[in-house]
Amino acid sequence: MRGLNGHTSLLTDRYELTMAQTYLRAGLGDKTARFEYFFRSLPFDGGYLVFAGLQDLLEAIVNFRFGERELRFLKEEGFSSEFLDYLREFRFQGDIYSVKEGEIVFPIEPLVIVEGNLVETQIVETLVLNTINFQSLIATKAKRAQWVAGPRLIADFGLRRAHGLGGIQASRASIIGGCSATSNLMAGLLYGVRTVGTMAHSFVLAFPDELTAFREYARANPDDCVLLIDTYDTLNSGLPNAITVAKEMERSGHRLKGVRIDSGDLAYLSRKVRERLDAEGLDYVKVVVSNQLDEFVIRSLLEQRAPIDFFGVGTRLITGQPDSALDGVYKLTVLDDEPKMKISDTLTKATLPGKKKILRCRDENGYFLMDVICLEDEPLPKEMYHPFEPTKHCKIKGSAEPLLFKVMEKGRILEDTPDLYEIAGYCNQRFSHLPEEHKRFEYPHTYKVGISPRLRKVRDQLMEINLAQKED
Amino acid sequence: MRGLNGHTSLLTDRYELTMAQTYLRAGLGDKTARFEYFFRSLPFDGGYLVFAGLQDLLEAIVNFRFGERELRFLKEEGFSSEFLDYLREFRFQGDIYSVKEGEIVFPIEPLVIVEGNLVETQIVETLVLNTINFQSLIATKAKRAQWVAGPRLIADFGLRRAHGLGGIQASRASIIGGCSATSNLMAGLLYGVRTVGTMAHSFVLAFPDELTAFREYARANPDDCVLLIDTYDTLNSGLPNAITVAKEMERSGHRLKGVRIDSGDLAYLSRKVRERLDAEGLDYVKVVVSNQLDEFVIRSLLEQRAPIDFFGVGTRLITGQPDSALDGVYKLTVLDDEPKMKISDTLTKATLPGKKKILRCRDENGYFLMDVICLEDEPLPKEMYHPFEPTKHCKIKGSAEPLLFKVMEKGRILEDTPDLYEIAGYCNQRFSHLPEEHKRFEYPHTYKVGISPRLRKVRDQLMEINLAQKED
Repeated sequence: MRGLNGHTSLLTDRYELTMAQTYLRAGLGDKTARFEYFFRSLPFDGGYLVFAGLQDLLEAIVNFRFGERELRFLKEEGFSSEFLDYLREFRFQGDIYSVKEGEIVFPIEPLVIVEGNLVETQIVETLVLNTINFQSLIATKAKRAQWVAGPRLIADFGLRRAHGLGGIQASRASIIGGCSATSNLMAGLLYGVRTVGTMAHSFVLAFPDELTAFREYARANPDDCVLLIDTYDTLNSGLPNAITVAKEMERSGHRLKGVRIDSGDLAYLSRKVRERLDAEGLDYVKVVVSNQLDEFVIRSLLEQRAPIDFFGVGTRLITGQPDSALDGVYKLTVLDDEPKMKISDTLTKATLPGKKKILRCRDENGYFLMDVICLEDEPLPKEMYHPFEPTKHCKIKGSAEPLLFKVMEKGRILEDTPDLYEIAGYCNQRFSHLPEEHKRFEYPHTYKVGISPRLRKVRDQLMEINLAQKED
Repeated sequence: MRGLNGHTSLLTDRYELTMAQTYLRAGLGDKTARFEYFFRSLPFDGGYLVFAGLQDLLEAIVNFRFGERELRFLKEEGFSSEFLDYLREFRFQGDIYSVKEGEIVFPIEPLVIVEGNLVETQIVETLVLNTINFQSLIATKAKRAQWVAGPRLIADFGLRRAHGLGGIQASRASIIGGCSATSNLMAGLLYGVRTVGTMAHSFVLAFPDELTAFREYARANPDDCVLLIDTYDTLNSGLPNAITVAKEMERSGHRLKGVRIDSGDLAYLSRKVRERLDAEGLDYVKVVVSNQLDEFVIRSLLEQRAPIDFFGVGTRLITGQPDSALDGVYKLTVLDDEPKMKISDTLTKATLPGKKKILRCRDENGYFLMDVICLEDEPLPKEMYHPFEPTKHCKIKGSAEPLLFKVMEKGRILEDTPDLYEIAGYCNQRFSHLPEEHKRFEYPHTYKVGISPRLRKVRDQLMEINLAQKED
């Protein structure tokens, strides 16, 4: 959550502090607690989620402090001076376990686990949810676009339609999912993302004519010149002018990098543009397109064999359209070593109690077969159960690897911040081991996530105890 | 855009700076320009938009400066040292005209007008779009919910599902649209929004039993006690325990403020809860509900006469679901006193050239009848034309008021920042003058926005000139 002025402690729902104050008054502050972050349903009716936001979250937790400005505000809001004294000294001192950033993950898996005293584990809830829900949504959206684009490049052009400052985090997440660059300079500054950008239609309009605009741009940017060719008429004005300038650039020892089309039928226009560029010996000039793109439009363009090298993707990437949020939640699962769960009318809404881990089973070629959620001290079981359908179970196959790692100990981040493109590389590598049937957009095959027999037993016992209490 | 660490200058698409650098090299920096912000289509298939984000935008423009950190970054990004020297001294010195924040507005109307030299008017484009697009979307969403909720209160509970730091701006905008409060403490700190919050299910789980949890909460928060009653069983556990605590509170001279239901059938449960509270003489205890609410769910609940006093609205409000973005654009309309327009294949995509104003015509009771976009120096015309359908025109009726006001002069904000609730009050007052047929959710009546005969002439002449050039 870089870019925020001051501490992250107030990027928080008020009830976290109301609860914390009450825990302390009631003498519960020193209880040890374990909270788990998980989500229930995959966005975009897709088959997987790209987990993102972890490094931002860890930094935000380290920066979760109450300075004088925050304390003054909370005093006005009516919190007790005793509680404010506590907050003044507050530092998150707990441990955090997490799947790696960029991991391919699935519903009900505990992805971030926060352990510590009840107050510190409760108080960071909103921060966990705000960071992981959003960045995972956008990283997943970007991965879908990058998957269909294959070796062609995708850049995030979305800042103008982003949700305020959230555009900064969105640009970060889009890189994890596979975008190569962003138009957003702030993301460049804060996260080291490569930035790109050339010209708007207003630039072309500002000169007496299009050719003059192109010439001036090429003169000022000889090594990074992409010309926007659709201001007046793509094929009859923009393209011939771009070709003229490309040849002038050649004579001065430079090369036109690309032409961009931002309106009209991109399949038809890109083909015509490519043909004429090639016929003029300008096969090195790239074709860039933008305008209301998403994974479906990109797929359609490529199915039509549109010779496009670079996609600028805006609104629908940066906002996750049509799904604007991931439904991740943060639930108490252990209190003072006792497993806890929220009981619900339906099994699908109940939470999985106790200390758990995720084991991923892979075949001899490294492909992901299934994930099993076990108790923390449990060896790989022989079979696993469907989490919600009591009669469904299956044999466990392949060799298992753990997905959760300790990333924070007593409030200290354990590893150096990885470069964002390293995280993207990890994501890409993991994604290559996800079988294809989980990647498709239409009714993707459901990846198997099960619970171990021992975990199932713990859950069912807790539910029975609750039922018995209710009947008393 | 409060809350951002440092200057706003890099919350910008790279191409704004690439263009600016080229304008300066080409000697165009001193040309005077006018850009206009407008949007093309109403979100949510609705009948109106609530204009929001203005004060944030003006502050962001004042703070649009390049400090050493930004300049160092831009140097690494390859911008010329000559240009960086220019940016070091850069201050926005232009004028801005805008409709008032909270105004009810419609497509194609120029809502924000930026005048100055070509560089300074171009360079703030992304900031204008990022701020106004998002906040107007969310303010409109909030207004829809507030409209159906009538006198009942609505609060924003969305931070956990918001788009990263964008949640801060979203909370701000939701107040303009009619929310009374937010759960987001940062919005409270930065914008003076009232904050609310009580407890999560984890709070109830952290105590040996529900009654103890309620008692401890009431003891710690005797004057602001809302109890979450659905952790175990709303009617058989949560409600009886809340009633017990309410009576205990009465004995110590306090009053239980409310009970919150966060799952199950909210219509059924709220009715049962209300009945039993009333039967126990607790008619002053409010019924608060949350869980996947939006304007449609609220309407449905109230159609079922659910006795709900307070709605906590989260994800769908704070992200604008199902529309995640407003399609606002920022276009050059005048350059060195010459009207400019982007020519397009279709009239709907072409822009309106020249210096313009908006006049709103109202009937004798103050109700909005129609808006007409005229040239700046034009008196109220007698008739107006449909902007895209050349044969449609209508007589202008009622008395006219201007909608655009100068809000920034030579880079200085002209008025003190109004309180957010004042803006919300203005919005509410204006909304009360919008005829009901534009407010409904299903196929709302289209509000008439026309262009004056003189503006139409300027546009058609420019289009003809362009056509003639193309045929040359």
